Amino acid sequence: MISVNQQRLWQRLADMAEIGATPAGGCNRQALSDDDSAGRALFETWCRSAGCEVRRDAIGNVFARRAGRSGSLPAVMSGSHLDTQPTGGKFDGVYGVLAALEVVETLNDNNIDTDHPIDIVVWTNEEGSRFDCAMMGSAVWQGSLSLDDARALTDLNGVSVGDELERLQLAGEAPFDHSVKAAFELHIEQGPVLENERLPIGIVTGVQHMCRYRIQFHGQETHAGPSPMSLRRDPMRSAAKFINDGYAIAERHAPQGRMTFGYIHASPGSPNTVPGTVELTLDLRHPDGDAYAAMQNAVEAAFSAAAAEFGNTCTAQRVWEAPGVTFDERCVSHVREATQVLGFAAMEMVSGAGHDACNVAAVAPTSMIFIPCDGGLSHNEAENISSQQAASGADVLLHAVVAAARAAS
Amino acid sequence: MISVNQQRLWQRLADMAEIGATPAGGCNRQALSDDDSAGRALFETWCRSAGCEVRRDAIGNVFARRAGRSGSLPAVMSGSHLDTQPTGGKFDGVYGVLAALEVVETLNDNNIDTDHPIDIVVWTNEEGSRFDCAMMGSAVWQGSLSLDDARALTDLNGVSVGDELERLQLAGEAPFDHSVKAAFELHIEQGPVLENERLPIGIVTGVQHMCRYRIQFHGQETHAGPSPMSLRRDPMRSAAKFINDGYAIAERHAPQGRMTFGYIHASPGSPNTVPGTVELTLDLRHPDGDAYAAMQNAVEAAFSAAAAEFGNTCTAQRVWEAPGVTFDERCVSHVREATQVLGFAAMEMVSGAGHDACNVAAVAPTSMIFIPCDGGLSHNEAENISSQQAASGADVLLHAVVAAARAAS
Repeated sequence: MISVNQQRLWQRLADMAEIGATPAGGCNRQALSDDDSAGRALFETWCRSAGCEVRRDAIGNVFARRAGRSGSLPAVMSGSHLDTQPTGGKFDGVYGVLAALEVVETLNDNNIDTDHPIDIVVWTNEEGSRFDCAMMGSAVWQGSLSLDDARALTDLNGVSVGDELERLQLAGEAPFDHSVKAAFELHIEQGPVLENERLPIGIVTGVQHMCRYRIQFHGQETHAGPSPMSLRRDPMRSAAKFINDGYAIAERHAPQGRMTFGYIHASPGSPNTVPGTVELTLDLRHPDGDAYAAMQNAVEAAFSAAAAEFGNTCTAQRVWEAPGVTFDERCVSHVREATQVLGFAAMEMVSGAGHDACNVAAVAPTSMIFIPCDGGLSHNEAENISSQQAASGADVLLHAVVAAARAAS
Repeated sequence: MISVNQQRLWQRLADMAEIGATPAGGCNRQALSDDDSAGRALFETWCRSAGCEVRRDAIGNVFARRAGRSGSLPAVMSGSHLDTQPTGGKFDGVYGVLAALEVVETLNDNNIDTDHPIDIVVWTNEEGSRFDCAMMGSAVWQGSLSLDDARALTDLNGVSVGDELERLQLAGEAPFDHSVKAAFELHIEQGPVLENERLPIGIVTGVQHMCRYRIQFHGQETHAGPSPMSLRRDPMRSAAKFINDGYAIAERHAPQGRMTFGYIHASPGSPNTVPGTVELTLDLRHPDGDAYAAMQNAVEAAFSAAAAEFGNTCTAQRVWEAPGVTFDERCVSHVREATQVLGFAAMEMVSGAGHDACNVAAVAPTSMIFIPCDGGLSHNEAENISSQQAASGADVLLHAVVAAARAAS
């Protein structure tokens, strides 16, 4: 049974991590920066050495193709992104790209031809940290974001995506080609579930439903000293009650329901003034559509009740929503069968975070593979995996890609 | 029975409010500004017209003396402050100063001499909004703050108290003279209790104990998506639990216990990141020393428990504390008897906020008188009282001052 070259994959992860390396051991290789450009150049050099034909589309997505037996068949696509957070790790995205390259190298080493061609893909600006639009390149490719709108996005210095694509000469002529037979994205989990379950592989069956609320409780600002509690309209009382209620709702939908109160602000924010307004955000997620809707209904009732109970009013808007994605059953099967062939214990799971695969799934059969990462830590310079974990995930990707690239599959 | 001239008092409040008047109907006459200086000049003109001798001390506190029958007896002192918040009202402080002047005017109108002299006092920088030290002038006079430290305080533009005292020529040669027989400060309540009880006068028997905590709950920052609730260490859970527990502790010490959570901040403050740290402030007050200590013990146990319950840690410091003040029994009696003589319904109460009277009380027999203000609103341009309410309070002050200024009293 063929398997990837663990040492080569690990060495390439280390080599790529030198570009934009940070003193704390992470990477700062933000989208369309000089370092992002250098990382792409290194990747393209490796791909050409591996015999691939490299194309780029107008938003700078890179497609490195290993030809199939028949030039006319749609490709099996695999990849992720090379850009990082400003204080990002060495594996988020990069691992999925270099593991896809390792799949191609392994097929080369073993002189294995596939019926369908294989495209190693690098999506532009997945992180959305420099240019505030996560999964930008895959959205343009897929069609949900226009090329013009993407090119017009600017960073904090007013430099646009279009400016940088031209300065760094990263755009190409490749069409936005959706003739994809199957797509796989291998990624670190970015959460603690696999590590906690001591499993090397997650078979990702979809991405959970998610939305974000912005909620304000309005009361009456007053001096902390002279006002008895009974005569106050203190919006903090409503906020604290609502947050506790929210956690209780999440518990009723355990283990899959998730609630995060990531932002809270009391106005005017003076220690000796009862606040006039408390504003907070709620990020709500669940993989099951019915449970997700039930959680939404419950929190919407909870914030109205929490306001009324203490004589306050509330305003609340659902400011963002991303419907869940259910991955392609056949792609998921290819991954599941690969774990069985390889003898890896695995669990089926949904992704808590969005990935380029969500955009790809809108136009092509898609699924994802997760491997554990230390402590579930990601978007952090301390992000880490072992070379064996990296090789295990790449082996699953290898077998899934080979299976999908068979004409009969 | 003598009583103050309601129309004159009301007109002077209106005249003073023109200096630093804001478009929204309030006042911006911050300490040691040109407008503060203009307000003091107007006040001193009125005092001289009323036959008073005006002195100033080194920190700019003003003492306008109406002589007593004997020049050697200690004065009965009454006053407050003329400086305002940046978006302050027309009555906070000013009312106490101009009512004390009205007491002198009324004694003049009725040709009444007192045994002891009467000092109308204006304390410098009570608000502490421009120079961050509330009740500054009375603290220097009393001795708890050194003149040098006060003069060195700077505003946001780096201008010091000393600079402004010199530029505006507001400092004088009067000694910090503590030979005070009795001191009274008449003030708007700045809270809703009197209005709620429909009472014209509050007999203030002291100032409550108060302290401020700064509390941080530390958990683990992580992505809102991939982490199941059961594997998170979310400091917001501890914060929300603690705030709810805090309100319950205040309820167990109702009606006098007070808790205010005026500031809260989640780091990093991103809607889709479980915070790593939640920081908040707690302002805790109670007039009774034992109950105050019991509340402190209860909240200190509550924040440790709230941290532990959700796997978080906490750090907490009591960053500020002002012990309660019990006013002089004889001064309180003078106020109580004045309300009885005048036939005013009144209640005994403790002040929720600090006042210059707290500093004065450390060296001289002192008490305070409150009148209601609309909706309990203060530190607000909408702060309001009626001319009748103003006159009622000034009448109580008049009778209390006259009683205290008797040689036999």
